[in-house]
Amino acid sequence: MKRPVVARPEPAHHDGSELYVPGGPHVLGDILKVRLRVLASAPYSGVVLRAMADDELYLSDGIVQTKDRWETWYEADLPMHNPVMRYRFMLLRPGGAFDWLNATGIHGWEVPDSADFKVTVYGSAPQWSRQGAVYQILPDRFARSAQAADNPSPAWAVPKAWGEPPSPGGAVSMPEYYGGDLAGIGQHLDHVTALGATTLYLTPFFPAGSAHRYDATSFQRVDPALGGDQALVELSSQVHQAGLRLVGDLTTNHTGNRHEWFLSAQANASAAEAGFYLWRSHPGDYVGWWESKTLPKLDWRSTELRHRFVQGPGSVVAKWLAPPYSLDGWRIDVANMTGRYHEVDLNAEVARAIRQTVVATRRDGLLVAEHMHDASADLRGDGWQAAMNYQGFMKPVWCWTAAPGNQTNFFGLPVVVPRRPGSAMVRAMRAYAALLPWQVFSFMWNNLGSHDTVRYLTLTGDRDQVMASAVLLATYPGVPMIFAGDEWGATGINGEHGRVAMPWNDPSRQDSELFAAYSAALGLRTRHPALVRGGLRWVLVQDDAVAFLRETADERLLVLISRAEWAGAELSPEISRLGQPRKLLGPSDAVRSGSRVQLPTCGPAAHVWVL
Amino acid sequence: MKRPVVARPEPAHHDGSELYVPGGPHVLGDILKVRLRVLASAPYSGVVLRAMADDELYLSDGIVQTKDRWETWYEADLPMHNPVMRYRFMLLRPGGAFDWLNATGIHGWEVPDSADFKVTVYGSAPQWSRQGAVYQILPDRFARSAQAADNPSPAWAVPKAWGEPPSPGGAVSMPEYYGGDLAGIGQHLDHVTALGATTLYLTPFFPAGSAHRYDATSFQRVDPALGGDQALVELSSQVHQAGLRLVGDLTTNHTGNRHEWFLSAQANASAAEAGFYLWRSHPGDYVGWWESKTLPKLDWRSTELRHRFVQGPGSVVAKWLAPPYSLDGWRIDVANMTGRYHEVDLNAEVARAIRQTVVATRRDGLLVAEHMHDASADLRGDGWQAAMNYQGFMKPVWCWTAAPGNQTNFFGLPVVVPRRPGSAMVRAMRAYAALLPWQVFSFMWNNLGSHDTVRYLTLTGDRDQVMASAVLLATYPGVPMIFAGDEWGATGINGEHGRVAMPWNDPSRQDSELFAAYSAALGLRTRHPALVRGGLRWVLVQDDAVAFLRETADERLLVLISRAEWAGAELSPEISRLGQPRKLLGPSDAVRSGSRVQLPTCGPAAHVWVL
Repeated sequence: MKRPVVARPEPAHHDGSELYVPGGPHVLGDILKVRLRVLASAPYSGVVLRAMADDELYLSDGIVQTKDRWETWYEADLPMHNPVMRYRFMLLRPGGAFDWLNATGIHGWEVPDSADFKVTVYGSAPQWSRQGAVYQILPDRFARSAQAADNPSPAWAVPKAWGEPPSPGGAVSMPEYYGGDLAGIGQHLDHVTALGATTLYLTPFFPAGSAHRYDATSFQRVDPALGGDQALVELSSQVHQAGLRLVGDLTTNHTGNRHEWFLSAQANASAAEAGFYLWRSHPGDYVGWWESKTLPKLDWRSTELRHRFVQGPGSVVAKWLAPPYSLDGWRIDVANMTGRYHEVDLNAEVARAIRQTVVATRRDGLLVAEHMHDASADLRGDGWQAAMNYQGFMKPVWCWTAAPGNQTNFFGLPVVVPRRPGSAMVRAMRAYAALLPWQVFSFMWNNLGSHDTVRYLTLTGDRDQVMASAVLLATYPGVPMIFAGDEWGATGINGEHGRVAMPWNDPSRQDSELFAAYSAALGLRTRHPALVRGGLRWVLVQDDAVAFLRETADERLLVLISRAEWAGAELSPEISRLGQPRKLLGPSDAVRSGSRVQLPTCGPAAHVWVL
Repeated sequence: MKRPVVARPEPAHHDGSELYVPGGPHVLGDILKVRLRVLASAPYSGVVLRAMADDELYLSDGIVQTKDRWETWYEADLPMHNPVMRYRFMLLRPGGAFDWLNATGIHGWEVPDSADFKVTVYGSAPQWSRQGAVYQILPDRFARSAQAADNPSPAWAVPKAWGEPPSPGGAVSMPEYYGGDLAGIGQHLDHVTALGATTLYLTPFFPAGSAHRYDATSFQRVDPALGGDQALVELSSQVHQAGLRLVGDLTTNHTGNRHEWFLSAQANASAAEAGFYLWRSHPGDYVGWWESKTLPKLDWRSTELRHRFVQGPGSVVAKWLAPPYSLDGWRIDVANMTGRYHEVDLNAEVARAIRQTVVATRRDGLLVAEHMHDASADLRGDGWQAAMNYQGFMKPVWCWTAAPGNQTNFFGLPVVVPRRPGSAMVRAMRAYAALLPWQVFSFMWNNLGSHDTVRYLTLTGDRDQVMASAVLLATYPGVPMIFAGDEWGATGINGEHGRVAMPWNDPSRQDSELFAAYSAALGLRTRHPALVRGGLRWVLVQDDAVAFLRETADERLLVLISRAEWAGAELSPEISRLGQPRKLLGPSDAVRSGSRVQLPTCGPAAHVWVL
């Protein structure tokens, strides 16, 4: 007889959530009482915290705090000796052997420090940013108000009818102009609210040379085609009155080649702006983003650039955060390459400078980096507050749920998205999370797609899968980000093709069941703080199903996500002892028979229970 | 029937050795042709190099270079776009799936970048440093010349008879004075040469307040008790005439509290030297190494300290590298904590400054850091050239070979050294190696112990194990370092206790078989460049035995190390195809029967074969 699969917590657990680490902000010299739980069934008789202080060993005995027949809680001292403290635990076995517990789990070998737990004195992104969810809007494609007809069309614009699909990439897609405007956004805040999103993140609203507007021609004004500065003032006011937040998008790696700075720079080699760019030979030969001549790369060695762009109340960064525009924060485009070129690497300096201005301008300001790969080296905690979590969420989830035989390019690699077992997804998620301080990790922007990717429905080809993954998005630590349209089942084979105009007037393209599924998933976050602030314990990793606990002192949620019918599992006694799981979401109940509780086997599906 | 265990290379392999990466130094803008081998039996149909350039994706197709029935070699372009390039390979499966190959092996999930291969423009430690082996000498304990009687005894000295064992730690061991001197060292270079060591590394020779002399009172002269400056000039000359190298030991984290700088600093708060230290309240309250009042910590924010100590030809660092002392390099004590205190972290700056002076003073100068833990963050390649490899060699080997029931404290942790399976050792070695550029990893100082640890013979309690591990030490990538006495079977339960005076006149304490074993192991390095410059492929990981290949274009060695009798394994066809292994070292032959070659099962033992 096959032994039943059991959903079971690991023998010992710690993470950076409030169950285990006191709330910040922490300051240098603090002694944090950090906690660790060890299951009664585990082979451990004691624990010792091991930290590095000035890169030398610091040890602190774990003191038993509480102990019952299920688990023992230990507490140990962690001094904030340095701005970033890395630490892990020795799990002592009777007889003298021991294992290490770090942020990837338990290890019986001498692990390096990279996956140690990390806590910093740098604080975190503002709490509001993870309370709800982020709704990403590409202004040209979201909504066109009645006033939009009065706005000037940009010179580059090639008008498209609202219901027409965008072209799938290439030069032809750049000028495709649907004519959405900021006033249009303001008219649909009810949609955003009904979905359960709390933050609007707008891709750039500056005048530019294309529909995506990442090739800005100025950072000093809102594109008149979107309604100009006044439209932003009004939108900001509406958004805030609705209790929502508004985040802008700033490209710090490059500008457009029609940017006013670049024009001055090209016109006059001794202009201040000439120092903003990287010249091989002025004025014709300069460094561009991926050698694109339309996107000249900025040179952050220029102090004048720093002042105009990011430092101080007169800077671009500050201007739009201050009244009357009152943005709540910035998402930084191509943050990964910003300030980096050959032997120069000013990325960390620029990030810190932007953060300083953001926080000086508004104490609860947000700063999130775009980084499509492993950003961990840039996420120590003192610069970017968090990043878009392509690496630690989107890619792993894609590689678990992509349709067999899908034709989606895997994020620039010369392959289609592979379909891998649940272990590959969880391993990737854990490995990446382990590199980040929890204060960063739990504010990362998770997503299933964006304006730069295939639409997730197209990738999976399966509404049920989208609904299940929406629950994963809403329940995994971090901030769910949804690209407008996903909630109605927008499709598109790549970034450009997926930038569809929202079908406000075409009910046939408004998948209301999908919307309801997203809304139900996001709604959980409002009612269940454990999804926002709780810890994370993985309890099940199967090829086709994974499950984890999200926990605070006050509540415990069990989340089960499957990508297909699977063989099922029962809950371990450590979980089932808490009584009959109360279902919050999902098609089936967890079935109790005697002391055993059996998880439902359907899939693709998502379930959430309160324990 | 049980399937036989097979020693087999992994399906695909790359490392930083000359088989795979062109020799440096590399400069920014170079395009390196890097190579990758894929076994014919592997499920891969192609490879793509994936690097990060300015932290964005760079891809290069692998082109088939050679292909036979056993393996395919690919070549791909790696541009040195940044000073440190990290890269890995996609291994493409027919049908579109793929795996990643990074420095820890092959992975079917989205791995972070930390274990990517790394190559830098910073060069490496000098080639001479890894040609042979390092012999560590604590001057007070090595040899006492006839002239030593004329040297003044230090004020702190508590004389001990040469044959008496040192005390096992505590305050009592600090002043235990055996009276070894530099001239004594010069009289025993034949011993060093016979052993096969090529570099003498002397722990500090400056005047100090203890026998270990890490509490210097001056960096300007050699302790008169050791024979003074002239004795060093003479020793240096003898060493170099013997074709050997001489490395000194410098403490950059702290000085002794009787150091001339500290005395000036305490006497006068406005003296330049007052800025060299960290005061809580002048003159009585200052920061010490681990709060030790005898070891005041240096404050590297002081530019005057930088100039006097490490920068420019007038500095301490330069003085002893220049004639007439002509040291070949420095080992830096407590490098891990140097320049680090609370919010200040100048470690990288100090390391780069020292390196600059070392290399400016002598082009082939060596700079090696002491770091007992995970030094990878400090070993990017531009500062310390390498480090003592406690983390990536000594600890893993200890945890494989420690005697069951040993009473040795595990490096400061509140446990004895655990005994773990071979997989734990290899995993730890690979994980750590993967964090370092090969240019650093292959110059790390590997050791089985030092003046700071238990004697390895005491830890294992088994001469055969010591002999086997000596071969591992001599054949693993990096530089073998032997603490004087190990080769004769010195014992000691901890660092202090193990600092025995060399028993020149006591043949009963000269284990000549052990000496011969060390000498045979180190001798292989002279005759087999693959042990110095070759790549590393692990081919067998069992609880009690491990094996690997060291390879250049011209030779291929197979190394097998066992800690106990084990079940044995046969060589995979990829290895056995090369004909009957020719034994260089070890008790038994590899036995061929038909096409199969069987490895010997004895243990503890070490074997090395040429294939």
